[in-house]
Amino acid sequence: MPQPQLQFAHSDSESSAGYIAATSASEANAADNAAAVIVDPGPEVVDAWRSEAGVAGDNRPSEKTEVHCLEGQLDRTYLFATDGDGLILIDQHAAHERVIFDRLMQTLRPDNSQLLVIPETMELNYRQYKMASEKIPVFKSLGYDLEPFGGKTIVIRAVPVIRGISDHKPLLLDLIEQLLATERFNNPKEIQEAFLITMSCRAAVKAGDRLANLEKEQLLSDLWKTRNPYTCPHGRPTMIRLSRDELDRRFRRK
Amino acid sequence: MPQPQLQFAHSDSESSAGYIAATSASEANAADNAAAVIVDPGPEVVDAWRSEAGVAGDNRPSEKTEVHCLEGQLDRTYLFATDGDGLILIDQHAAHERVIFDRLMQTLRPDNSQLLVIPETMELNYRQYKMASEKIPVFKSLGYDLEPFGGKTIVIRAVPVIRGISDHKPLLLDLIEQLLATERFNNPKEIQEAFLITMSCRAAVKAGDRLANLEKEQLLSDLWKTRNPYTCPHGRPTMIRLSRDELDRRFRRK
Repeated sequence: MPQPQLQFAHSDSESSAGYIAATSASEANAADNAAAVIVDPGPEVVDAWRSEAGVAGDNRPSEKTEVHCLEGQLDRTYLFATDGDGLILIDQHAAHERVIFDRLMQTLRPDNSQLLVIPETMELNYRQYKMASEKIPVFKSLGYDLEPFGGKTIVIRAVPVIRGISDHKPLLLDLIEQLLATERFNNPKEIQEAFLITMSCRAAVKAGDRLANLEKEQLLSDLWKTRNPYTCPHGRPTMIRLSRDELDRRFRRK
Repeated sequence: MPQPQLQFAHSDSESSAGYIAATSASEANAADNAAAVIVDPGPEVVDAWRSEAGVAGDNRPSEKTEVHCLEGQLDRTYLFATDGDGLILIDQHAAHERVIFDRLMQTLRPDNSQLLVIPETMELNYRQYKMASEKIPVFKSLGYDLEPFGGKTIVIRAVPVIRGISDHKPLLLDLIEQLLATERFNNPKEIQEAFLITMSCRAAVKAGDRLANLEKEQLLSDLWKTRNPYTCPHGRPTMIRLSRDELDRRFRRK
């Protein structure tokens, strides 16, 4: 059942607690909803994930691989890690996107949303209003309860539980614009996946966000548990690996 | 004047104080002897340094470049640093070799040696003994006071002041073997340079040695002040640079 709440959770972009907070919320949902996954990615989506980086399902890193973060970090954008064999550079935003996308794929469903005690209104332009009104069921499937209010106003009655996103209005605008911009969207699954990618991007830590060591370790460990840790859902790489062997050769130690 | 000392300085290979200790000793000597550099590298050697990595003298990094170590480290072999534009991977051994070599080039001379209170003896085989006896002046020019003792024994009366080397016997054996192995050594300058390279290699921190953060910073800062920070005296690279631009392109941020 949707639970009412008094206000959106606010994430302070200057705080470094963002990653762990986002994680634990999603994890709680994942546990609650383990028996009722409605947004089943389906075999074709999983295959798409696998082929995204040309990675066969069996090649994904074993969960036994011990990967740990090195303390260094470059411009709060790239993290350094090692799996005991060389250096791994990780794009923190791309990595977090992959983690959130996989979680949303497993947990997002219509009744996993929070009812707002005070519904919010959003002013749109005519094209946006028309599109939003027509696609109410699509938004419903993601956990948004929208209602046309007349004029060009939409009322937001409920929003999905996605920590890391404190203000849903810009995200909703993004999603509506995405629908307007892309003619090819006719398959509901395709729309949903595109929406989940946009939501992951919005919710993920950004390049420049400060992560505490504990958060970096958690992000890494979460990334390694995803189906395809090598790319973000847009298909950009999440990591670059410099093996010890390659380093030794480039430094002419071998 | 050579100063007698009671014993060799012992460097504990498990301690992390090695780099700073080695540095400050060499620095003190450099200051003392600034006015009396006997081992002048000469223009041809300087040109050799410059051409070693295809680097013109004017291209060497400005001392104003702010390079600082990142805290991470890979297997106590490679250090990470940044100059504000990307990642620099540094081979700690190769970097330290370059620093020591440049210092030795400037400071090593016959009277920069320490007289041993109790001279040490070294047993050699016949070929080694013959070579050492013939090349006494070469060793003298490096600060070693050797004396043939009869049979196959050499007496060590004085050794050069090189912190980081606590036991000179293995180094002397290396140098004698190097003379035996290389027929081409006929130019005293060439012999001396080859010897300095061997001495730098012996005195430098090794791959696997633990360096404290302060020592890493000091090593980096010393490296940046050398004539050719890009290669060790053997010609191996001391660093690999991944510019922010290259990283951004590889992560498809651009």
